[in-house]
Amino acid sequence: MPERERRWNAWGFEGESFPVPEAARAWLTGRVGPGEPLPAVAEADVEVPPAQPLAAMPIATVTDRAVRLRHACGHSFPDLVALRTGTGIAFPDAVSFPESTTEVAELLRAASAAAVAVVPRGGGTSVVGGVSVVPRSRPTVVLSLARLGGLVALDAGSRLATFRAGTLGPEVEAALGPHGLRLGHEPQSFELSTVGGWVATRSAGQRSTGIGKIEELVAGVELATPAGVWRLAALPGSAAGPELRRLVMGSEGRLGVITEATLRVRAVAECEDGLAVLLPGWAAGQEVCRRILQDGVPVEVLRLSDPEETSFAMTLASLSPLAARASRVLFGLRRYRQGCLLLAGWTGSAQEVALAEQTAARLWRAAGGVALGRAGWRRWRADRFRHPYLRDTLLSAGWGVDTLETAAPWSRLEAVYGDVREGLRRAGEGLGFRVAVGCHLSHAYRDGASLYFTFFWPLARGRERNQWRALKQAATEALLSAGGTLSHHHGVGRLHVAYLEREVGRSGAAALAALARALDPGGVLNPGVLLPEDA
Amino acid sequence: MPERERRWNAWGFEGESFPVPEAARAWLTGRVGPGEPLPAVAEADVEVPPAQPLAAMPIATVTDRAVRLRHACGHSFPDLVALRTGTGIAFPDAVSFPESTTEVAELLRAASAAAVAVVPRGGGTSVVGGVSVVPRSRPTVVLSLARLGGLVALDAGSRLATFRAGTLGPEVEAALGPHGLRLGHEPQSFELSTVGGWVATRSAGQRSTGIGKIEELVAGVELATPAGVWRLAALPGSAAGPELRRLVMGSEGRLGVITEATLRVRAVAECEDGLAVLLPGWAAGQEVCRRILQDGVPVEVLRLSDPEETSFAMTLASLSPLAARASRVLFGLRRYRQGCLLLAGWTGSAQEVALAEQTAARLWRAAGGVALGRAGWRRWRADRFRHPYLRDTLLSAGWGVDTLETAAPWSRLEAVYGDVREGLRRAGEGLGFRVAVGCHLSHAYRDGASLYFTFFWPLARGRERNQWRALKQAATEALLSAGGTLSHHHGVGRLHVAYLEREVGRSGAAALAALARALDPGGVLNPGVLLPEDA
Repeated sequence: MPERERRWNAWGFEGESFPVPEAARAWLTGRVGPGEPLPAVAEADVEVPPAQPLAAMPIATVTDRAVRLRHACGHSFPDLVALRTGTGIAFPDAVSFPESTTEVAELLRAASAAAVAVVPRGGGTSVVGGVSVVPRSRPTVVLSLARLGGLVALDAGSRLATFRAGTLGPEVEAALGPHGLRLGHEPQSFELSTVGGWVATRSAGQRSTGIGKIEELVAGVELATPAGVWRLAALPGSAAGPELRRLVMGSEGRLGVITEATLRVRAVAECEDGLAVLLPGWAAGQEVCRRILQDGVPVEVLRLSDPEETSFAMTLASLSPLAARASRVLFGLRRYRQGCLLLAGWTGSAQEVALAEQTAARLWRAAGGVALGRAGWRRWRADRFRHPYLRDTLLSAGWGVDTLETAAPWSRLEAVYGDVREGLRRAGEGLGFRVAVGCHLSHAYRDGASLYFTFFWPLARGRERNQWRALKQAATEALLSAGGTLSHHHGVGRLHVAYLEREVGRSGAAALAALARALDPGGVLNPGVLLPEDA
Repeated sequence: MPERERRWNAWGFEGESFPVPEAARAWLTGRVGPGEPLPAVAEADVEVPPAQPLAAMPIATVTDRAVRLRHACGHSFPDLVALRTGTGIAFPDAVSFPESTTEVAELLRAASAAAVAVVPRGGGTSVVGGVSVVPRSRPTVVLSLARLGGLVALDAGSRLATFRAGTLGPEVEAALGPHGLRLGHEPQSFELSTVGGWVATRSAGQRSTGIGKIEELVAGVELATPAGVWRLAALPGSAAGPELRRLVMGSEGRLGVITEATLRVRAVAECEDGLAVLLPGWAAGQEVCRRILQDGVPVEVLRLSDPEETSFAMTLASLSPLAARASRVLFGLRRYRQGCLLLAGWTGSAQEVALAEQTAARLWRAAGGVALGRAGWRRWRADRFRHPYLRDTLLSAGWGVDTLETAAPWSRLEAVYGDVREGLRRAGEGLGFRVAVGCHLSHAYRDGASLYFTFFWPLARGRERNQWRALKQAATEALLSAGGTLSHHHGVGRLHVAYLEREVGRSGAAALAALARALDPGGVLNPGVLLPEDA
């Protein structure tokens, strides 16, 4: 696979972008008014302070200015503001690129002995501060898994494939494809993120309604810690005490560095298809999704946008003149004023796909839905990894945008939805600006679903971080109070760490702290992520 | 539900038993020869030493002789020998029956302060020593969940039902049935075991191939610890750090006492059916099971007996004369000399059940299988909770019998199967007796399956425990060396505790010990279960 150069201060690859369509500008201006563009400093103009001297490490470390800059931040909103303004960045003192599990373990042992903080980094796409360096008195090394990639072993009969942690999404599928296999784990960061990052953060892919979150896909795992290498062999199921693989999943580099994972893969499906459906409202749409899951209809992708997100999505779609006219007519109908777009995708044999779609169609038709055909589905499929690029162009156009996600039982979803929207609205009002909030339901389960919020506001120069902080705090308080989880698939990182105890309780926080002390007695691993730095 | 009296020294209820059929006696005599019957002492003849005095507890404790005897043991082979011979039983000094989560927590706090050991007990059906009292210098209280049962809350829209820990299997289904719902978790101990016990041991039901082990069914959980009550609310999915619910599952009373669980339930299926199939051999049968899972055929029950278990099962079946003749003819065919019985069950709409069965039938026909019809399936369904009663009548007839189970990826199953059988054979040979070993594959997954072994040997009076120990040790060594897990659904208890570190590694053992110290600093909870007593 040809190496594509990553952008240093924005999502994705050089040469890619998602310009803000005129219709989207108009929509945002109408909803929240214009804001002040956030310009971006040139890479050469970022002031990078000298590195703190480091104790001798057993493997090479790089202290090059550009490398330190490119390994300082992830992709949270504060990270983006830091990179674009060149202010408030904390730089690692060195970056290392181990090429084996042994090298990772040796580095961790040495770092622990020398009290050097280690920030493990896969694709660097964390939006919750999971890979962001923070200023501290002792030195920090970023441990990049970029040179620890590739397929290690394939047990095709058991449908198990072992990958090194640094393997990128497209590399996973490229390694499996020739064997007629696929993993199917496709988070929005698919092109940039890694196996290790997925496991460390309990990632979910866009097909997770069908194939499960990464937790369901991990059969075995290898974790390097300062005390050595911990291997948990692949097993389909066990009752040998608590499932320790699940402790590694979601450990966010705080309990160790994931070096390998054995993943459950499946045969490439004979058939894959999907379509877009318009539902007459949010409640009706949720009910259709709930029924699809609880009736056991084997759906792989299920994604329902609320009226606001549906409306914004229409401004991004480059429809043919005919489709645009049809869509204006449809949304003009009283019935679809609050129309919600549902995307549903299926895989399997042709017979299975047809049966599943028929069964689901009975449910959405009964709810007043109308199928819009396969074009919308295919456009979404083609564009889905491009959407995050829009964040950067919106910043340049004057609008702040961030996303957050949660999950709750079906019975709590309406409260979570309403309270988060209201919390964001009020927080903006308190600071004197309007907020637009879109939401989609995805990753549906028999007992509930995740809600993914995208919110937009007009940027005020120099106050971007304050604006964001007020919004983030209001939304997080609201979702926790309403019974949602702190995160469904982004993780805890640094940005959610102060809230974790509210969700997992005092005993939960104590259990995590005890685990961290047991596996990383020196407290050098990703300090401040997952647990408060003083835990 | 009318209370049925439990037998004090054997499986199940008074008035129930499973007499050893003549054909089974002949089979066992042919395979391993006759043994010496293990007689059973009368309850009144068991010597129960006086209880150690106990510090004052915040709730009532019972020190009645009969109650202490009935709460001393579980149902492992050593437990049964102890109860039948009245030797080697360690008695609790008191038994308490808390009626609320608060009472459980208060008891634990007081026990921790007074250094009183606490053995939590649900249905008492552990076959791995999970509820067995051991002799110790400080007093031991058994904490029975018998009065902490019932449905607490039902969120029918989210398909979530919260039960108190002491709720028995039939009580769960009786509470859900009127709402058109079912849990469907049906371990062989279903009539005797409890929600809390299922969660504490990572239990699997006979439908688990379809609906998952108990881990998949738990959305939320409540755990009482000496430090208070730890609640993890029901969530369909999360990325808020490692999944701490999974730490509670499998904690076997060592990290706390499970007091409530919120379970994922489903609608009662429109249709349920199944059938028995005869496959021409063990390898062919496994291949059919693997394909059924990997092709995504929605099967709920899948159970494949090896030739030896199939042969023994035929001695237990009370076939009609016609069926018996047909079966003799079939097994007389060269093709089915190594015949393996497969039981497959489906639920869903009539259309779904029919499609699934058709799809599976293509696979077994291609492997040379022949459907035996629905009678065998129905007989198994009717008898499945009676099978454990056979253990006790076999002991009386002179044969030792025990079971153990494991799981491994498909690619390792043959090695596990062969090595466990060989290990048992050699261990018996070393002690001068023959061993018969039957096995079935159940709880199948895309990436592997569990194997459940039943082994028989001729008892030698006074040496029953030594015989068993040699067999158990050989089998456990064999399955671990071959890549199987220590247990797929029975748990660790006391009997597997010495082996756990071999499976989970030094880091895993350290992590568990750290958790135990964090949640139970006094080390009073089920000491010696899950972790060595000195850990």
